[in-house]
Amino acid sequence: MAQHDDAAIEVTGFAWVPPFARGQVRDLRVRWALEEIGLDYRTRLLDRRDGRTDDDPGQPFGQVPVYREGGLTLFECGAIALHIAEKDERLLPREPIPRARAIAWLFAALNSIDPMMGALLEIDLFSGGAQWGVLRRPAAAVRLEGRLAQLGAALGAQDWLEERFTVGDLMMVATLRNLKPGQLFMPQNLMDYIARGEARPAFQAALAAQLGDFALDREGVPT
Amino acid sequence: MAQHDDAAIEVTGFAWVPPFARGQVRDLRVRWALEEIGLDYRTRLLDRRDGRTDDDPGQPFGQVPVYREGGLTLFECGAIALHIAEKDERLLPREPIPRARAIAWLFAALNSIDPMMGALLEIDLFSGGAQWGVLRRPAAAVRLEGRLAQLGAALGAQDWLEERFTVGDLMMVATLRNLKPGQLFMPQNLMDYIARGEARPAFQAALAAQLGDFALDREGVPT
Repeated sequence: MAQHDDAAIEVTGFAWVPPFARGQVRDLRVRWALEEIGLDYRTRLLDRRDGRTDDDPGQPFGQVPVYREGGLTLFECGAIALHIAEKDERLLPREPIPRARAIAWLFAALNSIDPMMGALLEIDLFSGGAQWGVLRRPAAAVRLEGRLAQLGAALGAQDWLEERFTVGDLMMVATLRNLKPGQLFMPQNLMDYIARGEARPAFQAALAAQLGDFALDREGVPT
Repeated sequence: MAQHDDAAIEVTGFAWVPPFARGQVRDLRVRWALEEIGLDYRTRLLDRRDGRTDDDPGQPFGQVPVYREGGLTLFECGAIALHIAEKDERLLPREPIPRARAIAWLFAALNSIDPMMGALLEIDLFSGGAQWGVLRRPAAAVRLEGRLAQLGAALGAQDWLEERFTVGDLMMVATLRNLKPGQLFMPQNLMDYIARGEARPAFQAALAAQLGDFALDREGVPT
């Protein structure tokens, strides 16, 4: 297990989130990247239960994850994933063109897929059946489905978005898997792509580690 | 002027967009980055007027810009801006910590500010007064204002988000300036920050070049 208390790298997460968000909080993406290249890390869990406002000054928007390594404090899961990927060609090819293409998919996940995903998830998870959400959902779903159809066409019959798995696939799979089965239409090759990413041992280790952290109460006792 | 027909770098843009979008299309960000480091480029303008579906196979989501240089075809304005910035320390410091911090702000612009900006702009520019937008706007505005307050606190009294101008500021200014004055509350230091970015000669050159391209009809005749 890559998570231990005296590791040189620190990643923040939350001590508690509602059950629907477990396995989705964005420190998962950072844990996954670290697991892919076998880097140890320690976690620091921010506790927001019972009105606590446990915060980290390294994150300007009050979010997780924050990544610390030596004198570096880094935020934004995309920037952290890229920083980790630059350490090891298993996540980021060294040749200039494949490297740039992998980074393009990393940005695409976060700027061309994630916002449209977020618009739908906001309605389905957070609007509480409000009228604006009921009125808006059909168009938000159509727009995301259109984007997913384009992404599915770009993937085609390949296993990964470029010739092999990169940090771009890591971020894309982590983004796409926010959708629950049946929430809207997704091309079969994208569903297979998500399953392929989730089957990676590094993903499984990262997921188990995040879920394991949620299973501890604030005294570190399993709940 | 950095734009000429035999330049080695090609950037796609649109031949025409409605007046409200002129000076906002995302090829502006790429032109700006190129101008900052004095790199020449040529444009290829996609024409979508009169039902045309002029497209570029290098962009999986049917958008602009696409960036071509030698054997590289690159998409996502964030990835392109980073690729350009890696050529020159004026956009991206060489020292590891300032470099990583600049990249964090680049991602923050695109993933922590742009989506909330987009949610508001979609209502104000594209919803046509639909009921969902009327119902949703107050909460969308509050959320974006909250994010802008956090960004303003992070900027504080500095000129730029880190010690000097970087590609992170370029993307942040380009994102923030999508808001019109009065569209919602923005901290004064962010307004000054936008003005500081827009005053840069490289920004002015990029803006003039984009507006100049819109001023040509499809036969290249000024309209």
